[in-house]
Amino acid sequence: MTVPQSARGGGRAGRALRATASRGPLGVAPVPRRSIPTYELLSDDQLDRLEAHADWILATVGVDIRGDDESLELFRSAGATVIGENVRFEPGLAAHLCSTAPSQFDLHGRDGRVVPIGGSNVVLLPAYGSPFVSDLDRGRRYATLQDFENLVKLTYSTPYLHHSGGTVCEPVDVPVNKRHLDMVYAHLRYSTKPFMGSVTAPSRAEDSIEMARIVFGHEFLEQHCVIQGNINVNSPLVWDDVMTGALKTYARANQGCVISPFIIGGAMGPVTQPALIAQSHAEAMTGIALSQLVRPGSPMVYGNFLTTMNLKSGAPTFGTPESVLSTYAVGQLARRLGLPLRCGAHYTASKVADAQAMQESADAMMAGILAGSNFVIHAAGWLEGGLTTGYEKFMIDLDHCGMLIRMIEGLEIDRNQLAVAAYEDTRPGIAFIGSNHTLANFATSNYNSTMANTDSFEQWTEDGGLDTERRANAQWKRVLAEYVPPAIDGSIDRALLDFIAGRKDSMADAWY
Amino acid sequence: MTVPQSARGGGRAGRALRATASRGPLGVAPVPRRSIPTYELLSDDQLDRLEAHADWILATVGVDIRGDDESLELFRSAGATVIGENVRFEPGLAAHLCSTAPSQFDLHGRDGRVVPIGGSNVVLLPAYGSPFVSDLDRGRRYATLQDFENLVKLTYSTPYLHHSGGTVCEPVDVPVNKRHLDMVYAHLRYSTKPFMGSVTAPSRAEDSIEMARIVFGHEFLEQHCVIQGNINVNSPLVWDDVMTGALKTYARANQGCVISPFIIGGAMGPVTQPALIAQSHAEAMTGIALSQLVRPGSPMVYGNFLTTMNLKSGAPTFGTPESVLSTYAVGQLARRLGLPLRCGAHYTASKVADAQAMQESADAMMAGILAGSNFVIHAAGWLEGGLTTGYEKFMIDLDHCGMLIRMIEGLEIDRNQLAVAAYEDTRPGIAFIGSNHTLANFATSNYNSTMANTDSFEQWTEDGGLDTERRANAQWKRVLAEYVPPAIDGSIDRALLDFIAGRKDSMADAWY
Repeated sequence: MTVPQSARGGGRAGRALRATASRGPLGVAPVPRRSIPTYELLSDDQLDRLEAHADWILATVGVDIRGDDESLELFRSAGATVIGENVRFEPGLAAHLCSTAPSQFDLHGRDGRVVPIGGSNVVLLPAYGSPFVSDLDRGRRYATLQDFENLVKLTYSTPYLHHSGGTVCEPVDVPVNKRHLDMVYAHLRYSTKPFMGSVTAPSRAEDSIEMARIVFGHEFLEQHCVIQGNINVNSPLVWDDVMTGALKTYARANQGCVISPFIIGGAMGPVTQPALIAQSHAEAMTGIALSQLVRPGSPMVYGNFLTTMNLKSGAPTFGTPESVLSTYAVGQLARRLGLPLRCGAHYTASKVADAQAMQESADAMMAGILAGSNFVIHAAGWLEGGLTTGYEKFMIDLDHCGMLIRMIEGLEIDRNQLAVAAYEDTRPGIAFIGSNHTLANFATSNYNSTMANTDSFEQWTEDGGLDTERRANAQWKRVLAEYVPPAIDGSIDRALLDFIAGRKDSMADAWY
Repeated sequence: MTVPQSARGGGRAGRALRATASRGPLGVAPVPRRSIPTYELLSDDQLDRLEAHADWILATVGVDIRGDDESLELFRSAGATVIGENVRFEPGLAAHLCSTAPSQFDLHGRDGRVVPIGGSNVVLLPAYGSPFVSDLDRGRRYATLQDFENLVKLTYSTPYLHHSGGTVCEPVDVPVNKRHLDMVYAHLRYSTKPFMGSVTAPSRAEDSIEMARIVFGHEFLEQHCVIQGNINVNSPLVWDDVMTGALKTYARANQGCVISPFIIGGAMGPVTQPALIAQSHAEAMTGIALSQLVRPGSPMVYGNFLTTMNLKSGAPTFGTPESVLSTYAVGQLARRLGLPLRCGAHYTASKVADAQAMQESADAMMAGILAGSNFVIHAAGWLEGGLTTGYEKFMIDLDHCGMLIRMIEGLEIDRNQLAVAAYEDTRPGIAFIGSNHTLANFATSNYNSTMANTDSFEQWTEDGGLDTERRANAQWKRVLAEYVPPAIDGSIDRALLDFIAGRKDSMADAWY
């Protein structure tokens, strides 16, 4: 969108915005289950070869674990070869060390709801980690705590996201060493959905878990997963002590992590996708193995973030055919390992919620869903390669999430769906619009989009000729205006605020 | 896009357009083959049930064939039960009558190129049938012959479309009874790719075939398929004499047709998708059966156009989860029948090439490709439920076609793709950007988008902050400016023009 600031909001277009703004769906819904098959891109022989290559990489190149003697020692004790900071694994060892991780586990929300991770469950989360936000009114700008809270509220308000996410944007108006406290508070206060805590230092991970203990209780948290950390590998094939420190902190508390190699082909891995897939598999297995050495049975998600690069400019590219293919392969490898899968998302390199944004996003997200993804980080809001979370993009993505949730229900082939009665009662050339079968089924047959405009051109023009991005602009404002915070026990809220105040008082502000 | 007319084209943004306009890929390329598996949504049991339901519909409701005694007699002779204009088929008869249609056949272009239809081949075509066109400069307007010629030229200029299409838009400035002559001429003169002729009257189909005879020769045309007709069923379950007349004309000349039931769930069929799929299957089989009764072995495509409806407004909706699911089911049914498949397209209800347009289009097109579509009508340019062909949408779709053509190549798992040499020569933490393997593979590894902007926000802003639609605007102008018509033998061209002049002189203009 390149509409000048002054043209927005007022006059005819403004009236049209108010007139046509449809409200996004509100609420909390059960986690959807995939009833359709996964897409199996590769043959068993090809998968064998990818697994063997991952094993070969781990035996030949290994992974470096930097500045973390404890983790080196854990791997040595488990049978790996440790030379300096380099750890090598005999073929099969890494997969074997992953075998105590559960194939499915439950995440708990503070309202008592259970969010199952793994199996055929599909859990969708908002975007993660952007330093910027954007919307049509104020453009692209550094994110603030206010934006963070807004995104938590938008996530809480939709049935199409089942998890509050983690760093839904970076609140850069809060000191780096304190912002995790405000972020975790926002998730706990403004939502009831499960969430992810800090991973930028072991102490911040510990703070995040401690705040969860205040809400859930020590006993409950010891036995149940209520918080997760989003752990990226320092690809290629390096673990640094920040990431292993956070990973160990969550695992030790029996909480979960998502282990995601972050590989852009041609940079953190080779330019050819099969190599990337094998490398990502190798890296993910080492992280999950470490979690299991710290605490067997701690609940982990096998993640990946594989994409391509524009090889002229070095810019990462998204929703590309190569990354779509890799997504399917990664899904197959996760199933062979028997672990919950994170992959797919509404990824795009576009700066605005335009045609490029949704072509790339739709392809990347569809691939994740058909690949069998159980846990989709960045299911809403992602723009500009993750540098920006867009308010309008968020709402457009949500509608697509709703469509995909309908899609994974699949088709039921029974007498009603086959409309036997309708055909018994008709002859050629008679429209079905008024048939009893149509009347009985029309309310439930089709997903009802909150975003698509299907009006006539004349009606659409009369309503201001608003493109999707402008319609989405009205929608997020409406949802935020109608947001009502979930109840919280006053004493728990005070305990959280006291904890935060104490931690903030204990440190000078740090901005790096 | 709602940018006012006056803001377009000039000044800073205009310079930026010229600066950033990337040229679309030009030329003619071989038909791509799908090396990846199809997505198998339904089980064999479910497919058996759908086939049985289609048979039950044909036995119980049958199809009406209106105003065409010859076709009724052909079906009666073949064993169907004909009562008045209603034709009923014993279970299995319709499929049996389809069995002489070839599972794969070749279409011929006037440059000698062969476009194979069926098997694993994926042939992409432009949009078909819109009375309107639109572009950012002139907005939405009735299409003209000039637009028709432009779209033929854009199609000829891209390697991602392999067929010139048919009524790429309706040239409403030419009388209804004469425009087919100008349309066929445009395909034959401004392109060398295979094309579709008129189906709006048997005599117009005959004119179309006669013009093809002038170019290809009587003998060649008798033995080879060089032109097709796009035949829609008058759903539900009705064939009118216009459509059967055109179908018979093409089949008799041993030319091809695409048989496409056009069903919007809740209108021309029940609101539940399984019923639609079965009805569509029943309708398609009756059309193919008729073609085979006219001329066994005439080359047909099993088509479908199934979509959903907004049940509040009655507007057709596209790229919806229900239609995606149906696309997969239809693909499976076509494979069981052993016929080339038409399905999938860059469908959308959006009026502009925005986020909605590409989300809907990407989902609908991806489903067609993974469903195993062999023949994708509407692969470029479709807007507004087919009422409009958009110039910008056309270019955006083309880029996505390029991506999908790359995707269906799949992954090759070999030593080079696994980057064995690159790992032998590295250690953890070393980026692959400068490796020999990257240098050797970077030029061929990734599809190179002509449309996606992957620049930094700062660079993109400096270049005018153009969204995809505005970048596409520059691209189609560039391609049209660089278009060079293919050579044609002067005597053949004169013969075509003489034929057109003679036919036009023989009729008064008719505008309906």
